[in-house]
Amino acid sequence: MRIDGRENDQLRNVQLEAGYIKHPEGSVLISFGDTKVICSATIEDRVPPFMRNQGKGWVTAEYSMLPRATESRNIREAAKGKLTGRTMEIQRLIGRALRSTVDLEAMGERTVWIDCDVIQADGGTRTASVTGAFVAMCLAFQKGMDEKMFKTFPVTDYLAAISVGVDTEEGAILDLNYAEDSKADVDMNVIMTGSGEFVELQGTGEEATFSRSQLNEMLDLAEKGITELFQIQKETLGETAEKLQTPEPQEEKSE
Amino acid sequence: MRIDGRENDQLRNVQLEAGYIKHPEGSVLISFGDTKVICSATIEDRVPPFMRNQGKGWVTAEYSMLPRATESRNIREAAKGKLTGRTMEIQRLIGRALRSTVDLEAMGERTVWIDCDVIQADGGTRTASVTGAFVAMCLAFQKGMDEKMFKTFPVTDYLAAISVGVDTEEGAILDLNYAEDSKADVDMNVIMTGSGEFVELQGTGEEATFSRSQLNEMLDLAEKGITELFQIQKETLGETAEKLQTPEPQEEKSE
Amino acid sequence: MRIDGRENDQLRNVQLEAGYIKHPEGSVLISFGDTKVICSATIEDRVPPFMRNQGKGWVTAEYSMLPRATESRNIREAAKGKLTGRTMEIQRLIGRALRSTVDLEAMGERTVWIDCDVIQADGGTRTASVTGAFVAMCLAFQKGMDEKMFKTFPVTDYLAAISVGVDTEEGAILDLNYAEDSKADVDMNVIMTGSGEFVELQGTGEEATFSRSQLNEMLDLAEKGITELFQIQKETLGETAEKLQTPEPQEEKSE
Amino acid sequence: MRIDGRENDQLRNVQLEAGYIKHPEGSVLISFGDTKVICSATIEDRVPPFMRNQGKGWVTAEYSMLPRATESRNIREAAKGKLTGRTMEIQRLIGRALRSTVDLEAMGERTVWIDCDVIQADGGTRTASVTGAFVAMCLAFQKGMDEKMFKTFPVTDYLAAISVGVDTEEGAILDLNYAEDSKADVDMNVIMTGSGEFVELQGTGEEATFSRSQLNEMLDLAEKGITELFQIQKETLGETAEKLQTPEPQEEKSE
Amino acid sequence: MRIDGRENDQLRNVQLEAGYIKHPEGSVLISFGDTKVICSATIEDRVPPFMRNQGKGWVTAEYSMLPRATESRNIREAAKGKLTGRTMEIQRLIGRALRSTVDLEAMGERTVWIDCDVIQADGGTRTASVTGAFVAMCLAFQKGMDEKMFKTFPVTDYLAAISVGVDTEEGAILDLNYAEDSKADVDMNVIMTGSGEFVELQGTGEEATFSRSQLNEMLDLAEKGITELFQIQKETLGETAEKLQTPEPQEEKSE
Amino acid sequence: MRIDGRENDQLRNVQLEAGYIKHPEGSVLISFGDTKVICSATIEDRVPPFMRNQGKGWVTAEYSMLPRATESRNIREAAKGKLTGRTMEIQRLIGRALRSTVDLEAMGERTVWIDCDVIQADGGTRTASVTGAFVAMCLAFQKGMDEKMFKTFPVTDYLAAISVGVDTEEGAILDLNYAEDSKADVDMNVIMTGSGEFVELQGTGEEATFSRSQLNEMLDLAEKGITELFQIQKETLGETAEKLQTPEPQEEKSE
Repeated sequence: MRIDGRENDQLRNVQLEAGYIKHPEGSVLISFGDTKVICSATIEDRVPPFMRNQGKGWVTAEYSMLPRATESRNIREAAKGKLTGRTMEIQRLIGRALRSTVDLEAMGERTVWIDCDVIQADGGTRTASVTGAFVAMCLAFQKGMDEKMFKTFPVTDYLAAISVGVDTEEGAILDLNYAEDSKADVDMNVIMTGSGEFVELQGTGEEATFSRSQLNEMLDLAEKGITELFQIQKETLGETAEKLQTPEPQEEKSE
Repeated sequence: MRIDGRENDQLRNVQLEAGYIKHPEGSVLISFGDTKVICSATIEDRVPPFMRNQGKGWVTAEYSMLPRATESRNIREAAKGKLTGRTMEIQRLIGRALRSTVDLEAMGERTVWIDCDVIQADGGTRTASVTGAFVAMCLAFQKGMDEKMFKTFPVTDYLAAISVGVDTEEGAILDLNYAEDSKADVDMNVIMTGSGEFVELQGTGEEATFSRSQLNEMLDLAEKGITELFQIQKETLGETAEKLQTPEPQEEKSE
Repeated sequence: MRIDGRENDQLRNVQLEAGYIKHPEGSVLISFGDTKVICSATIEDRVPPFMRNQGKGWVTAEYSMLPRATESRNIREAAKGKLTGRTMEIQRLIGRALRSTVDLEAMGERTVWIDCDVIQADGGTRTASVTGAFVAMCLAFQKGMDEKMFKTFPVTDYLAAISVGVDTEEGAILDLNYAEDSKADVDMNVIMTGSGEFVELQGTGEEATFSRSQLNEMLDLAEKGITELFQIQKETLGETAEKLQTPEPQEEKSE
Repeated sequence: MRIDGRENDQLRNVQLEAGYIKHPEGSVLISFGDTKVICSATIEDRVPPFMRNQGKGWVTAEYSMLPRATESRNIREAAKGKLTGRTMEIQRLIGRALRSTVDLEAMGERTVWIDCDVIQADGGTRTASVTGAFVAMCLAFQKGMDEKMFKTFPVTDYLAAISVGVDTEEGAILDLNYAEDSKADVDMNVIMTGSGEFVELQGTGEEATFSRSQLNEMLDLAEKGITELFQIQKETLGETAEKLQTPEPQEEKSE
Repeated sequence: MRIDGRENDQLRNVQLEAGYIKHPEGSVLISFGDTKVICSATIEDRVPPFMRNQGKGWVTAEYSMLPRATESRNIREAAKGKLTGRTMEIQRLIGRALRSTVDLEAMGERTVWIDCDVIQADGGTRTASVTGAFVAMCLAFQKGMDEKMFKTFPVTDYLAAISVGVDTEEGAILDLNYAEDSKADVDMNVIMTGSGEFVELQGTGEEATFSRSQLNEMLDLAEKGITELFQIQKETLGETAEKLQTPEPQEEKSE
Repeated sequence: MRIDGRENDQLRNVQLEAGYIKHPEGSVLISFGDTKVICSATIEDRVPPFMRNQGKGWVTAEYSMLPRATESRNIREAAKGKLTGRTMEIQRLIGRALRSTVDLEAMGERTVWIDCDVIQADGGTRTASVTGAFVAMCLAFQKGMDEKMFKTFPVTDYLAAISVGVDTEEGAILDLNYAEDSKADVDMNVIMTGSGEFVELQGTGEEATFSRSQLNEMLDLAEKGITELFQIQKETLGETAEKLQTPEPQEEKSE
């Protein structure tokens, strides 16, 4: 039995609250259990220098945690004057993942800025961020559609992320909370599209390793969890969801 | 009539939600209308180098805004690699104000870190921060009392802050929202204690000036508003409020 | 009796030496007792990005102290790689105050850079800086007038600043030196125009508070001191002073 | 046929030159085709603060490229004053991977600093870095053994890394050079131990996705390539290799 | 004839005003013509980490220019967040030069901080800085002697610096002002001791070169100028000068 | 006898390997004994802002050492976030020296970026850098000539650098290795052109001084060593050398 009584293949309680803050073009508060992230999407009418004059848009992400989102207080990166490597990794990951389901040409020369601010952390902040950021981005694009900014909806498929791991006692488990993450041998983040393809796969076994059969068990769990996340995203998006192809059940897709 | 229909001496709707995030020793979400700030208080078992070996504690504050707390997106200070002058001014102000009602000796050699993170901004973020931070700090000290960390409660008096200003059409007004702040000739922040004394007074009339009688009108409004804030703080603090002297009505104190 | 034998309402010996360094368009060495500040004004033929294409000018200020302007040596901000919060507060204050008496449209799209470099500090460096910077700026504008840069003199009124405070033994006192500032309960900086209006009011009582009647006593002292500073500015400015309306005596203006 | 005529499952020419620079405790020049990296290992007699007093050692890595290691010149990170996110990701990856095969307790309270400096880049710099750094670290530990610094050899298993990818025309390919990397849909870095377990798996399909069967094809190629790298490492290590368990052929390990 | 009417071997008017600012242990205002530098010396009761526990002292220097010390305004290094290469070169030069005539063991474990702040620049700021800093340092050591801080006076010899150059029309010239420096082909800074030895020699001919005979002409001028500077230093030092061996005339020392 | 058995006027073994890395327009690996530096030259089709619209080119240099180029490991400047004063001095020196033999007008509005990366250090890294950078730059210009980028070869003369010093026991010595440099009283770097003129002369005697006759001895050695370096450069340049005037023997040029 897991620390919080869940089954090995069970997600925590996932909540998505659309329009959580009023200024951004799209915003959500996403909760994976006690992990809470404010995701907002801002549309800017220009692209970064390296993308200019290509008729395409760009999606970029920033990630941060409130100093006391965690059990002990972290020094602010603004006070340190630089981002940690962990933050850079996460924000690069979020941006890269979102771009995989965006039709950059349909965006025109615009940038979507994604801000993921963790207000409370209990494991899985990067997967909650990707999953919530996708919804915030869709809401912002919907607002752009309403204002005739785009001809076609610039998102081509659903996108969600979940963590999986291997625990010495429990075996492969889905959606690790902080306590589980701290004692797991392996930690893997999986990002998939509604059509059942992988976008990112990042598995690491610090001071531990994992076999190919453990990898396969983890991937099976991830597919199951992500399929459930797609349903929650769909409900939150409401009518906007119709602009996206309905994600098909993933189970039979795995070989 | 003010933009949002308020009387000149009327506060916006003020809400205080205690325990908003779970990890800090004390936390609140404070709202002054659409301005929302997460205030948290962390107790650390040491003091900064310049305070060591004096048997006294310290209170320090940090302030930040989410990039999209505002109408248009601000670049993160962590991304810029340095704090703006505005942020430094505000966090120095919050720390200085809180220290005026704290018995540093009763704290022992401990630091309280106050974090004020604005998740939505609509004017008055610094006054909401001071007012909310005071409550978060009291909650943290209450937790310390429960754990026998202190012999006496280290807070000596209530503390709250409000903005006042002069508008060409409306005259002196209380608790300016962003639209009012943008068109006001004068902006003043007032911080007072439960015993009716001033802690900070910061008035500025960029590209404008103000007379001594306008100053007096603004101070009258501020005293009225702060007295109301004390009642809201008291209700939020519940039993902890008993450890603080009940703030007396301020009206008769003004000359 | 005050530490240096002054009356409570008495300024220190104030000196203004125009043209102290040869390169700037305007420069002074100002002394408030042992506090000595080199103020220089540079006219640049462009404005910062946020002011472009508005047909208006800008005034901005920078402030610094030599490392050994003070009793013990301070680390250079250039060596630390960043400005302290105190420096940022002061330079923002100087710029904001000067702009309140400048007709930005009369400047055209030009920037005045004010540099206040404290070579010796004994309390009141920010008030000496504002008072000296005003004169340096007027001298620079006079040079601009001589060169047909402006059609009308871009300064609309006198501007000066002084500190006031409350000392437990002495009561309200004017123009605190460092020793007085260190033991005062309250420290307030007041900036006023020649027409007797307030531009900035910043009062703080770290680990202390002040009542409204103490505030009024301090403001009375400040008005007296600033009126004297206007006379010294007028004498230093010589013929340029004629372009400014003569500051009227302030006493009868207070309610 | 691949751009450079290789089979899909063929490594580039891999060279390892031990002792390439004279000062470090261990150093190699590693070449994966035209990709050339100087890897050095320094043993320091203390650990970072967060590891103190645990009786264990630490392994950390830094990565850099000469400005003109690439086709066009890159600005130095030292000139920019900060590391890029890419550099941080890579150096965190190298350190984490090496630690998975090191017995930190056998090291005592010492740090191994790994420096990977790319002098010429043609794809695969991070996998060449891991593979070369492992050998440099073993050489440094061998020197430590010779000097009686350790009781047992602190490395528990072989470690090597290779990239795999999916090309639209070629399908799954091993050890991508820069030209291949630029046009591949998917790029995956795999790090494995001599006993056939995974240490890190990082697959990404920017603006593309990959299926589970493509994942399996890539993993098969990676296992084959890494097995060949173990042989080259073994030959370079000479007698030191005897302190490590001989890596077994990996093919039959995959399920 | 030189721009300002001087002979080729003639110094500008050199002034040394001791005790220019009141807080430092030693301070001077030095003028080489219109070049004016405030030099101060601070004695600190500890040494930097790399000098600890050696029973010796250290001398280090910092150099800066006011933004408007020059014809056009320079951006402050504190605002840029880093020192320029030019500043670093100069402050390293000043510190190194001063240390050559200091008996570090006689200092005990103390640091002398030299601050050279150029308030007006007209060529030769680094040579004026070295020459003035030497006097400020001697004054600080004299104060230390008066307070029984040292057993023997820690300065072993006089030290002064001058610039020399080669001008296409004038030939070799001494003590270049800014206009001369801008058009000279070669610029050389020479630092010598009272006993006629070289401490530093830095000659550079950007976009020009110089022959060995031109070098010799410049060195002859430098020796003459430095001998005159020693006399001015001696007069300024007064009784302190007796603790230093009288500099002997240098002419006969040159080969 | 010197530490490594050389005569006082003898260079170490000097090697120049052209085309050491493949991407730059020009590159060499230069060795002065155990000191090894990769020098590369990049041609960029624009000039820095301060050189724009003058029809001239620019040459600039950057210098760095691998962390373990030295006996003990140095912290990377990229990790520290800023360049040391030593690095700035050296890279300014290299750029300035190279520009003295370049016809900037013949370059057109182009920049040559010189990168000197020390992979192994044993004294004389800056002189090896200048000497190698000159050859890398000539190779890059040769490539530009081949591509019709220039009408005339933009280099006007040979350029090389060597260190000389004074050792208490050995007297004046040429081309100091690290052990000699550490114990020498005086360290001087000399840069000369093929026509026997000085470009840079930087002599320093930290905690020591040197006489004019010692200076002359050192300059004689430097001229001899540099003449030998010109021959090695000429051999490496091959046909490109014909575009440069053959450096004449220098001995008779000294007075």
